[in-house]
Amino acid sequence: MLKITGIAASAGVAIAPAFKLEHPDYTVKQQHAKDSAVELQRFEEAMAASIQELEAIKERTHQELGAKKAEIFESHLLILNDPELLTPVRDKITNELVTAEFALDETAKQFITMFENMKSAYLRERAADMRDVTKRVLTHLLGVKYVNPAEISTEVIVVAEDLTPSDTAQLNRQFVKGFTTNIGGRTSHSAIMARSLEIPAVVGTKDILSQIESGDLLIVDGLDGEVIINPAPELVAEYEAKRDRHLRQIEEWKKLRDLPTVSQDGVHVELAANIGTPNDVTGVLENGGEGVGLYRTEFLYMGRTELPSEDVQFQAYKTVLEKMGGKPVVVRTLDIGGDKELPYLDLPKEMNPFLGFRAVRLCLDRQDIFRTQLRALLRASVYGNLRIMFPMIATLDEFRQAKALLEEEKAKLVGEGTTVSDSIQLGIMVEIPSTAVLADQFAQEVDFFSIGTNDLIQYTMAADRMNERVSYLYQPYNPAILRLVKMVIDAAHKEGRWAGMCGEMAGDATAIPLLLGLGLDEFSMSATSILPARSQISKLSKAEMEKLAAEALQKRTAQEVVELVQAIKQ
Amino acid sequence: MLKITGIAASAGVAIAPAFKLEHPDYTVKQQHAKDSAVELQRFEEAMAASIQELEAIKERTHQELGAKKAEIFESHLLILNDPELLTPVRDKITNELVTAEFALDETAKQFITMFENMKSAYLRERAADMRDVTKRVLTHLLGVKYVNPAEISTEVIVVAEDLTPSDTAQLNRQFVKGFTTNIGGRTSHSAIMARSLEIPAVVGTKDILSQIESGDLLIVDGLDGEVIINPAPELVAEYEAKRDRHLRQIEEWKKLRDLPTVSQDGVHVELAANIGTPNDVTGVLENGGEGVGLYRTEFLYMGRTELPSEDVQFQAYKTVLEKMGGKPVVVRTLDIGGDKELPYLDLPKEMNPFLGFRAVRLCLDRQDIFRTQLRALLRASVYGNLRIMFPMIATLDEFRQAKALLEEEKAKLVGEGTTVSDSIQLGIMVEIPSTAVLADQFAQEVDFFSIGTNDLIQYTMAADRMNERVSYLYQPYNPAILRLVKMVIDAAHKEGRWAGMCGEMAGDATAIPLLLGLGLDEFSMSATSILPARSQISKLSKAEMEKLAAEALQKRTAQEVVELVQAIKQ
Repeated sequence: MLKITGIAASAGVAIAPAFKLEHPDYTVKQQHAKDSAVELQRFEEAMAASIQELEAIKERTHQELGAKKAEIFESHLLILNDPELLTPVRDKITNELVTAEFALDETAKQFITMFENMKSAYLRERAADMRDVTKRVLTHLLGVKYVNPAEISTEVIVVAEDLTPSDTAQLNRQFVKGFTTNIGGRTSHSAIMARSLEIPAVVGTKDILSQIESGDLLIVDGLDGEVIINPAPELVAEYEAKRDRHLRQIEEWKKLRDLPTVSQDGVHVELAANIGTPNDVTGVLENGGEGVGLYRTEFLYMGRTELPSEDVQFQAYKTVLEKMGGKPVVVRTLDIGGDKELPYLDLPKEMNPFLGFRAVRLCLDRQDIFRTQLRALLRASVYGNLRIMFPMIATLDEFRQAKALLEEEKAKLVGEGTTVSDSIQLGIMVEIPSTAVLADQFAQEVDFFSIGTNDLIQYTMAADRMNERVSYLYQPYNPAILRLVKMVIDAAHKEGRWAGMCGEMAGDATAIPLLLGLGLDEFSMSATSILPARSQISKLSKAEMEKLAAEALQKRTAQEVVELVQAIKQ
Repeated sequence: MLKITGIAASAGVAIAPAFKLEHPDYTVKQQHAKDSAVELQRFEEAMAASIQELEAIKERTHQELGAKKAEIFESHLLILNDPELLTPVRDKITNELVTAEFALDETAKQFITMFENMKSAYLRERAADMRDVTKRVLTHLLGVKYVNPAEISTEVIVVAEDLTPSDTAQLNRQFVKGFTTNIGGRTSHSAIMARSLEIPAVVGTKDILSQIESGDLLIVDGLDGEVIINPAPELVAEYEAKRDRHLRQIEEWKKLRDLPTVSQDGVHVELAANIGTPNDVTGVLENGGEGVGLYRTEFLYMGRTELPSEDVQFQAYKTVLEKMGGKPVVVRTLDIGGDKELPYLDLPKEMNPFLGFRAVRLCLDRQDIFRTQLRALLRASVYGNLRIMFPMIATLDEFRQAKALLEEEKAKLVGEGTTVSDSIQLGIMVEIPSTAVLADQFAQEVDFFSIGTNDLIQYTMAADRMNERVSYLYQPYNPAILRLVKMVIDAAHKEGRWAGMCGEMAGDATAIPLLLGLGLDEFSMSATSILPARSQISKLSKAEMEKLAAEALQKRTAQEVVELVQAIKQ
């Protein structure tokens, strides 16, 4: 038995055999061949096997996920049948007496380089397809093993160095009971995805991959951030009990679904959810969300080859507003750039994308994109309780410009005879330190603030939250962060506005007592965090938490703040 | 005549013909050749011409700048004589019937890719040499023109898209009277270099390169940020007068050299200089610096193949301390990472280097590097008035760890019988928002603060100051920045500490009235800015500036602050 500590990324306990998801080494070691006929034969066999595999995957994907998701495999098949690739490989084998893998690898590399240097974003993306296809054929030629996560068909716990968004997208919840990864933190993509899939997960275990063999029995404790390898039967029983307690706890929480969120001393706050697509609304309502505190509209723009039309957007916004039935829906305008790219926009590479041309900065420059989104939002506004929020606002000038564009589009729509709601609240994300520091001035011009802690923390601490080497500086409990949060909330209240929070911190059990004490009005979080948060808040006295927060603001380090919160009875 | 507005990057007026510094297009367009004998001949001729050129440059560099600077050209010559490069090019021409330029370009690319993928930093650097040499031969084969800036030998104004640090390093002050570039801002490398060379410069003109022909008469007005193309004779006379007024002004300022810096109402502040090497001390004393407010020790670590020894560092620190003769010298410990790389440290590439593993973050991890520097500083401390400053401090934990290492090394040295000063002040750079916000807590543990505005502004506004697309957000006068500066100064004074500033803002004429009003104790700037600043401060009343600053803190935008300052009489 071995216990490894990591970061609790998604709550729950999972017990199942390990499945190591590893990307094999595709390095071609042997260049020279003895017999070109043999190599040609090997090449044709590997091609045939790859085509057979792809046909099967395409078929299954088509049946399970629909024609659109299967398209990618169709284009992989096209590559495998393309004489432009096949002829040079065969020629190389014949003329240069090299191994099939060497000939394929060299030829593919030339294509990949060529595609990567193309001006067209579409052609550049073909480099990734070519890379995938080459890897598939190489697994046969090199005799290495690779199992696509989509092909898992028994109950397992996935163990990996890291999971990319595409890896996690392929995980089947029926079979993947939990996962654990060497790298990642609470706000990494894989962690966020685990919470949304409700799969227990522990990330940032540093070197768990090297300590586990596929088939080892694992316990993933996503409540306390621990992974146990080959536990004794008594320990398994203990964790089964823990898992069941957690599941019962979840059942208990469900009873709070239709109740308001009220502190022990009777103060009401609003618990809302962060969503990415209209489909997520079901989860919000099932988990008792009192609103949508953050609708990330980026997903509408992703996975396409061109910008979504005004109508496509209008339909999405309308659906969310209608489904939420009059509850407030805060829609964040396009927040692209940084770590979120849109290939078809062909944005220049930046040295520091997190400090770059993104979100409202891009929208104020590319007004064509921005105006289309604003029009779609305005048209949808009559179908529910719409609030519009601009991301990455650093100066009042930017807010004023964005607001002016909204007003212009509104006037145009009204002029065209379209009805637009007259009670749309207009707010900003507070995720840049300058805006927090100047919140008292902003509060005189905006209707609300929503504090985006993921970015606010990384800018305030000057530490990229995706960079493992400085992850120790991603400190939500640092007194400097709490002070900025306080500035924002106080500024809002002084002007009769409300202040919410839509970063990961809003759903964090250690942060909630502090945020309640600081006077936060709205907490927006993963839908699955809402009921535990409601339960927690119902046991806290706001008056007591105000004292706690005041004390926390005078602490010197994040550790001191954590100790302060841990000392209170909850 | 055409007038173009840009950013005034270095004061003064220059009038001279334009010299366009352009990097030609080295794209090889013709692949197939008709006669390989002709191509072979072309190749040998281009090689011979390149070798002849390089021999001449090497010789001149050797005579003018010494053997060390000439070494680079020696290694370029070695490449041109290397059969490992020559043989494949000749083979390609003969066997594949391609043009000489195509054969060279293809072969060189293979070498460059190979070098770039090498583990050794030394070999990776050879990729750059290979690229330089290939370009030189290609200029002959393609018939394009390129003049190395070092080869300018008549009085000119250099006009370029941008100037790299190596371009500026090659500019000869005798002939280059000024420069103007399409891109760049006040804090770009080229701007800082222009001020240190005392060459008038206007940067960020957007598209000046396309509007000028070499030989056009230019006026570069680095006082008001204007470039005039082909001015009428009367205008030339007018600007000659302006240039002479500026030069007389400089003479006037020189009279202030040995006087203290005192405001109109008798308040003394300290004007210090930022330096990079012991050689810079002469300029500090000539310009009446009252101390060194920032000694950037990175330069000691650059341009070498391994870390500088303790003794090499000790000598440098001792020299600066002795030359400054008892005046305070604030030495900043190693601030590497971000945009400043050390190839021999082989640091991993980061997605957002400005938010990454740099400065004290790296030093606390690589204690071997840090301890060596601290020992060298401690040993040098008895030769003058040493103050040690840690860069990029985001949390009190980091300061405590760095301080503990210093104490350890001090105890070791004392144990070894080495004398160490007992009055070394220990401070921090305040360049991360969290530290500014928590300055009251820091002030209880540090001896002083020095505000690093270049970084503080970019983190507070979440805008990479090197990124042109978000340069409008680099706002020193944003009220949020002023509020953070105030927090730091007030916190220092409450605990009886002093607060300085060593970013570009400290020497900025618009910022100085505000900083004086906010109570800044020490202003550290380019040596050449000291006398104008002393003159400016002598005409300002601190009491009046306090009122001005209080008003500025209540403004909403940077523009409002600038208008406020411009309205006062100076």
